[in-house]
Amino acid sequence: MNRITNLFNIKYPIIQGGMIWCSGWELASAVSNAGGLGLIGAGSMYPEVLKEHIQKAKKATNNPFGVNVPLLYPQTEDIMKIIIEEGVKIVFTSAGNPKTWTKHLQENEIKVAHVVANSSFAEKADIAGVDAIVAEGFEAGGHNGREETTTMNLIPLVGTKTAKPLIAAGGIGTGRTMLAAMILGADGVQIGSRFVASFESSAHEDFKNEILKAKEGHTKLLLKKLVPVRLIMNKFAGDIVKAENEGASKEQLSKILGRGRAKSGMFQGDLQEGELEIGQISTQINKINSTKNIIDDIISEYQTLKQQLNHVRFSF
Amino acid sequence: MNRITNLFNIKYPIIQGGMIWCSGWELASAVSNAGGLGLIGAGSMYPEVLKEHIQKAKKATNNPFGVNVPLLYPQTEDIMKIIIEEGVKIVFTSAGNPKTWTKHLQENEIKVAHVVANSSFAEKADIAGVDAIVAEGFEAGGHNGREETTTMNLIPLVGTKTAKPLIAAGGIGTGRTMLAAMILGADGVQIGSRFVASFESSAHEDFKNEILKAKEGHTKLLLKKLVPVRLIMNKFAGDIVKAENEGASKEQLSKILGRGRAKSGMFQGDLQEGELEIGQISTQINKINSTKNIIDDIISEYQTLKQQLNHVRFSF
Repeated sequence: MNRITNLFNIKYPIIQGGMIWCSGWELASAVSNAGGLGLIGAGSMYPEVLKEHIQKAKKATNNPFGVNVPLLYPQTEDIMKIIIEEGVKIVFTSAGNPKTWTKHLQENEIKVAHVVANSSFAEKADIAGVDAIVAEGFEAGGHNGREETTTMNLIPLVGTKTAKPLIAAGGIGTGRTMLAAMILGADGVQIGSRFVASFESSAHEDFKNEILKAKEGHTKLLLKKLVPVRLIMNKFAGDIVKAENEGASKEQLSKILGRGRAKSGMFQGDLQEGELEIGQISTQINKINSTKNIIDDIISEYQTLKQQLNHVRFSF
Repeated sequence: MNRITNLFNIKYPIIQGGMIWCSGWELASAVSNAGGLGLIGAGSMYPEVLKEHIQKAKKATNNPFGVNVPLLYPQTEDIMKIIIEEGVKIVFTSAGNPKTWTKHLQENEIKVAHVVANSSFAEKADIAGVDAIVAEGFEAGGHNGREETTTMNLIPLVGTKTAKPLIAAGGIGTGRTMLAAMILGADGVQIGSRFVASFESSAHEDFKNEILKAKEGHTKLLLKKLVPVRLIMNKFAGDIVKAENEGASKEQLSKILGRGRAKSGMFQGDLQEGELEIGQISTQINKINSTKNIIDDIISEYQTLKQQLNHVRFSF
C-alpha cells in the first residue's frame, strides 16, 4: 500500500502545506473532506486562536487533519499543549530541531512529520524518530533552505539517507508534477501554493488573484542573509532586491523588513508593501477553485499520465 | 515512436550537453557510439580546433553526432561554415537569437535544436522553426537563466507554449531524474555533469574528482549581475560570493572574474582559482565511469522504475 495514505489514514497522498495566514480550519477541513490531509498553519496563530481553529475543524470534518507548527515561535509549548488537549492526531513540525517535540507528541498518540530542506536534516529527523519526512525544494514558496537544492535533486538525495515515508514539497501542484515527485522517490506530496488559490483558503482575495498573474521569474528567493523566503515580486520585494544588490547588511535588511508584512500582504491584501509568499508553481495556477475540484483535478491528471507511461514515447 | 530518437536517429533520447573544455570529439563520439547523441562543445574552440574535433569524431563513430554552438562568440560565422563543410547533420545553438542561424542550417540539411531557460524564448525558438527545443532549469551547471525556474516547473510550462520535440536539461543524470523529466513533458533529456565525470570527457582529472565530492549547497548560481553561472564553491567562487554580498557592481565582478578561468579550472585543473561549472546533480555522482556504463546505467534505472509504476505505492 501507499505509505502516506496508510500512515495518515487518508485517501490520496496529498498533504496541504500548513501556511501562515492562508490555512485555517476552513481550508484544512475542506482538504481532509476531499480525501487529502489538511493542515492548520499554527505559525500565524496565538494559542487561543489555534484552539478555536482546531475545534471548528473537528466540527467540519470527520476525516483526519493535522496542525503545522513552526518551532521557531516563543509560544510553542502552549501550542503543543492545546494540540494534545484537543486530541489532534497529526503534527507537522518545521523550522527547528525534530528532537525537541517528536517523542512527547508520539507518547500522546500523535503522528509526527518534520519538514527539511536538505538530506542531513532528513537524517536528523529520522534519528529523532519522526513518522514521515517532508523534503522541500528551492522552488517552494515561503521560507526555504540555504542550499537551494531543487525538488528534482533533493528528493532522490533524501531517499538515499532515510527509509522513512517521504513527502515531496516545492514546485508541486498538478498531477504531472505529483507523478514526477513520486518517480523521484516520494510516497506523497505536500502542496501549498495551489491551495492558497482556493475558495477555502484564508488568503486575501487580491493575493489569490495576484497568484494567477505570476509568470516565470515573478517569484524570487530573497532575504538570504536573514532566512531565505520565496516571494512574489512587488514594491516591497523590489526594495529588498535593490538593497541586496547594494550589499545591505543583515541589520539593514531586518529594518526594511520590519514586522507584520506577511499578515498585511497575504491576509490583508496589501499587494505593494506586504510579503506575498508563493512558490514557482504559481506560474501554472490559472484559476481560483474549490479545494475539492483542485484535488480531483490533480488526481485525474496523475492517473491519466500514469496510464500514458505505456505509450511508445516512453519506450526505447 | 519517441520524437527525439526519431529526429536524431539515435537509440536513446539522451543528449550529452555540449560543454566548454569538457566535451571534445572523444566524449561526443563515445556517447554516440553508446546510443545517445554526443555534442562537441564549440564554445571553447577556435574554428580550426573545432574542424579537427569534427574530423576525429567522424572517424570515431558511424552514429549521428552534433555540435553545440553558443551564439555569443565572435567567430560564429566561421564555425558554422566549418560545420556545414564538414557535413555535420545536427547543431544545438544556445545563448543567442534562434532566428539568426536556424534557416540557413536547415537549408544545409542540418537539424537544429535551440537551448532556452524560459517559455517565452521557447516560443521564439518555435517561431524560428527549430526542430527541437532544450529547456534548461535552474539546477543546471554553467550558464543559466535569470528567472531561476527549476526543471520541475520549467518543462511543463514550456510544454504549454510549444508542441516541438522537447529536451529537458538541468538536474538530470540518473534514470530516476530522466523518467521524472519525461513525465514532466519532455521527449528526451540533455545530460551534462554526469558526462563530465566520464573517462572520455576532456575535463581535468582533478576537476572530475572534485565533482564526486560535491554535496548539497556546494554548487551556487553566481555572477547574476553579469551572466548567471552555476559553479562549485572554491576560493574563486568564495571571492565572488563575498563581493556580491558586499554589493559589488557589474564592473567590479568583471574585474574579479578576469579571463580564462573556465579553461584554468575545468581543463587545467586549477581547483582554487578556476571556474568549475557543474550542476546540482553532482551530489548524486559518485564515480568516474565510462560513457557506455553511464548510459547503460541510466537506461537500466529508467526501465526498472517504469516497471515499478505498477506497484501499489503509486496506486490510490
